Amino acid sequence: MRKDEQLRFNITMSLDGYVAGPNQSVKHPLGEGGDRLHDWAFKLKSFREMHGDGSGGETGTNDDIVRETFANLGATIMGRNMFGGGPGPWGKDPWKGWWGDNPPFHAPVFVLTHHAREPLAMQGGTTFTFVTDGIESALKQAKKAAGGKDVMLGGGAKVAQQYLAAGLIDEMEIHVVPLLLGGGARLFDDLGRLGVRLEPIRTVEGPGVTHLKYRIVKEADLALASGAV
Amino acid sequence: MRKDEQLRFNITMSLDGYVAGPNQSVKHPLGEGGDRLHDWAFKLKSFREMHGDGSGGETGTNDDIVRETFANLGATIMGRNMFGGGPGPWGKDPWKGWWGDNPPFHAPVFVLTHHAREPLAMQGGTTFTFVTDGIESALKQAKKAAGGKDVMLGGGAKVAQQYLAAGLIDEMEIHVVPLLLGGGARLFDDLGRLGVRLEPIRTVEGPGVTHLKYRIVKEADLALASGAV
Repeated sequence: MRKDEQLRFNITMSLDGYVAGPNQSVKHPLGEGGDRLHDWAFKLKSFREMHGDGSGGETGTNDDIVRETFANLGATIMGRNMFGGGPGPWGKDPWKGWWGDNPPFHAPVFVLTHHAREPLAMQGGTTFTFVTDGIESALKQAKKAAGGKDVMLGGGAKVAQQYLAAGLIDEMEIHVVPLLLGGGARLFDDLGRLGVRLEPIRTVEGPGVTHLKYRIVKEADLALASGAV
Repeated sequence: MRKDEQLRFNITMSLDGYVAGPNQSVKHPLGEGGDRLHDWAFKLKSFREMHGDGSGGETGTNDDIVRETFANLGATIMGRNMFGGGPGPWGKDPWKGWWGDNPPFHAPVFVLTHHAREPLAMQGGTTFTFVTDGIESALKQAKKAAGGKDVMLGGGAKVAQQYLAAGLIDEMEIHVVPLLLGGGARLFDDLGRLGVRLEPIRTVEGPGVTHLKYRIVKEADLALASGAV
């Protein structure tokens, strides 16, 4: 049964398990070859609209999936690496994200970081709030800001692993692209034994990408359902 | 265009990229928790038939996929680890595989190993031939034995990585199961930059498993097709 205010995780992964190529840098934020992961998304009508370009773009299966992903969404959580600007303190002329003056989120975004910073209001309704007291605090703040809508976990890999390990993700959609990057940032790494079970929701094949969607069932819920507690 | 005598690779993988769980041993040949990877296959009618049990079993999507996989198949290649019996010399009472007197292959099987050994004929048409001079030799022998039919690459991960890196695989079908094993033998590891491109053939969702099938296009073929050579 679907609860209110789900935490949904949504990410594009190569068939060999990478969400970014090797050697990530300011010049190559997605690593070498990592841009190709998102070829399927860049050309979609929904993607263009979110980025302020309402002219043209592909409709169809992939576009429908992306629209569904961003429907009923009230806030986003991401890691410092996804927000960008390199590691360490923010400095005098702090980085404002990869997305220009009008980022595509149009809602509150919570950035996990070790370095405190004042909230940053951008055009179009996006506000970046910097959270230094951990993933559970970020989730609590994001759910409150989302006002009953869902929260999106955007990535990157390390943050997703923390939320997965903590059993905090409700739904996960992985867009698998037919690429072998051969190296980079793995989505699933160092997870160890998890107290979660995946239930497939649906598989959709679009041009150049396969969308795998799962509900994540926590072991506590399983025990409850079976009457074991 | 489909060539004769394809090398087809067929393997079951967890969503987090593992084809066996951690701590593989004679007691746990698929590693801890790795048995669960194959729950979808064990109960199929086609699987039971191949293992000499014609009574019952599931039909439907997954059964159709397995039947298609084993159709037009003339020989199999596998690594020493998949054949089993531990590493090192074969010893006085050599291991005869995991599958009993009547293995489910019913055709020539070529086992890659560093340790020479006489061929081993089993019941039901399975013959294990032990190949010590590398993956290309095994493929050449297997294609000859297959008599115009396809050759199956069964695994494990290390052998598959060698064939992938050498650009020798024509088709690859990955059965993705909704499990996070959290550790074990990764299918895709240490691949580095590959001179291959994947073209999706089809995606099929069955109960408890999603079947992703790709054609592997070698860069040499790509250059030829574009007139670059």
